[in-house]
Amino acid sequence: MTSRQETPEFALIRRYFSQLTACRSDVLLGIGDDAALTRCPPGMVLATSMDTLVCGVHFLDTVDPEALGHKALAVNLSDLAAMGAEPAWVTLGLTLPRADDRWLEGFAKGFSRLARVHGVQLIGGDTTRGPLSLTLQVQGFVAEGSGLRRDGARAGDDIYVTGTLGDAALALYRLQQGLTDEPGSETLLARLERPQPRLDVGRALRDRAHSAIDLSDGLAADLGHILASSGVGARVELPRLPCSAPVEAFMRARGDWSLAVAGGDDYELCVTLPETLRDEIAALSRELNLPITRIGRIEDAPGLRCYDKNGGLWTPPSRGFDHFSEHDA
Amino acid sequence: MTSRQETPEFALIRRYFSQLTACRSDVLLGIGDDAALTRCPPGMVLATSMDTLVCGVHFLDTVDPEALGHKALAVNLSDLAAMGAEPAWVTLGLTLPRADDRWLEGFAKGFSRLARVHGVQLIGGDTTRGPLSLTLQVQGFVAEGSGLRRDGARAGDDIYVTGTLGDAALALYRLQQGLTDEPGSETLLARLERPQPRLDVGRALRDRAHSAIDLSDGLAADLGHILASSGVGARVELPRLPCSAPVEAFMRARGDWSLAVAGGDDYELCVTLPETLRDEIAALSRELNLPITRIGRIEDAPGLRCYDKNGGLWTPPSRGFDHFSEHDA
Repeated sequence: MTSRQETPEFALIRRYFSQLTACRSDVLLGIGDDAALTRCPPGMVLATSMDTLVCGVHFLDTVDPEALGHKALAVNLSDLAAMGAEPAWVTLGLTLPRADDRWLEGFAKGFSRLARVHGVQLIGGDTTRGPLSLTLQVQGFVAEGSGLRRDGARAGDDIYVTGTLGDAALALYRLQQGLTDEPGSETLLARLERPQPRLDVGRALRDRAHSAIDLSDGLAADLGHILASSGVGARVELPRLPCSAPVEAFMRARGDWSLAVAGGDDYELCVTLPETLRDEIAALSRELNLPITRIGRIEDAPGLRCYDKNGGLWTPPSRGFDHFSEHDA
Repeated sequence: MTSRQETPEFALIRRYFSQLTACRSDVLLGIGDDAALTRCPPGMVLATSMDTLVCGVHFLDTVDPEALGHKALAVNLSDLAAMGAEPAWVTLGLTLPRADDRWLEGFAKGFSRLARVHGVQLIGGDTTRGPLSLTLQVQGFVAEGSGLRRDGARAGDDIYVTGTLGDAALALYRLQQGLTDEPGSETLLARLERPQPRLDVGRALRDRAHSAIDLSDGLAADLGHILASSGVGARVELPRLPCSAPVEAFMRARGDWSLAVAGGDDYELCVTLPETLRDEIAALSRELNLPITRIGRIEDAPGLRCYDKNGGLWTPPSRGFDHFSEHDA
């Protein structure tokens, strides 16, 4: 029962991590003092996002630690992508029941590989004993006035999403139902466990998009945040939703769009853009080799309206993925 | 088993907190988007500190939530004090078994009162369900080149500590032994539960002190960090250690200096300063109405040497407060 005393083995973890991430010139003092000292470039503002992942709530205790290391950082970077920010530094609060070498090695590998890819340096944190959970805070830069926000959508905007929708939700469903031998499960699992933060899309659109958000809770919930913040509504054409073959097949068999509309954990971006940029978005999609699909349009009337191919109105479940799970589990 | 979907009651918590802390002009976008946007003043660098507090490890589950709210922020601000930084923003990752109104109200009260005193604004965070724990990250500013560090102590420096030592450790001992009816226990408990971050001392000394650290793990352990980082040693005169009457009495009865030398959780500052500043420190102590006591001197020879009033060498326990608890519990 003590305050914050670090045992030697936990101090080692800290030092171990500190050598694995990027090494940035704007970090004046990294891990090892009372606080880190870092420099923000002139004319830029800081974008800050914090996420907590708790074992049994956000991930299963059987999770591959390398995948968890990746995902913990990825979901935070996804928030910066949705702001159009350049990632810079991360702090990691890691609470572990015990210092398990193999677990830590795997976690550090997944975490640090993604950090290096995006030039992110670990500058501090805290390592404590307790029930497994992680809190990460990432920070990045964006020029003052050019950050993407949720509250700028305007009637007439096109609505786009990156990548495909529903893969992570279907992967979790298959895990929960013991259906991981079905075709395509490996690819789906990668989508659940190793989401790719769409930083390149956020970067390309930061002076163009009227609004943006990352899809953590599902399209209906997250687009709903844009609509509420912006005081507008939207129509979404369900047949336009970009989905992988297994997700398409699953939804067709059930006659239910929930997986794509309300499945969470995809960490794709949803953005709204003026119609005049359609050619530019098509070019960006080719350049990044990533689907960026127009799925609907912002309208004045509040609320989200989803239409099927016959023009029929379809009501998405109100609580996103949770709701979806309850229905099917 | 979902990703990061926030239940309505947890969203309320977030909004509740957001109205209680300071409101700063350098916060361009606070709680409610994918990331907060904040501005760092020109010429200043950012000081960043993260701490995790886990129930059953860092605090008892019987803790007064208001005291916990205070302490969680105070221990983080103490790190900024040790850097000589001006606090600015905080993020809060709060994991709770359930949304308990009374608990949250108390926690928010303690947290926000201290935040307002020091002009700190809550700019974001995450609220999740799970075993009770908290991760906070505070950030502040310090002029480039003037931040206090651990690695600047020089042979010949005077060593000072603020306040008194051992109070928090004695408070915890009395709690553990059921001795809370003994005289002075209320004052001691306040020292354990409501530490005061010494931001004013850090501010006053940031261009004067050669090194600084905050005392979270006990004098021996924390001064030890300064010595190791600076490549020097120290002699400490035990009779000079500033202690309250109950701590003095406890140590005298046992003939053991452990409480003052190795008791953690005091969150006072330990600084090293050139001898030429003695008058200035005495004046600062009077101005702040806070003891700032010279307890020893930095020497070339590595290691920490503690001397009693007869000039005898006394060896402090190696593991600080933990060790102390094990001996006595």
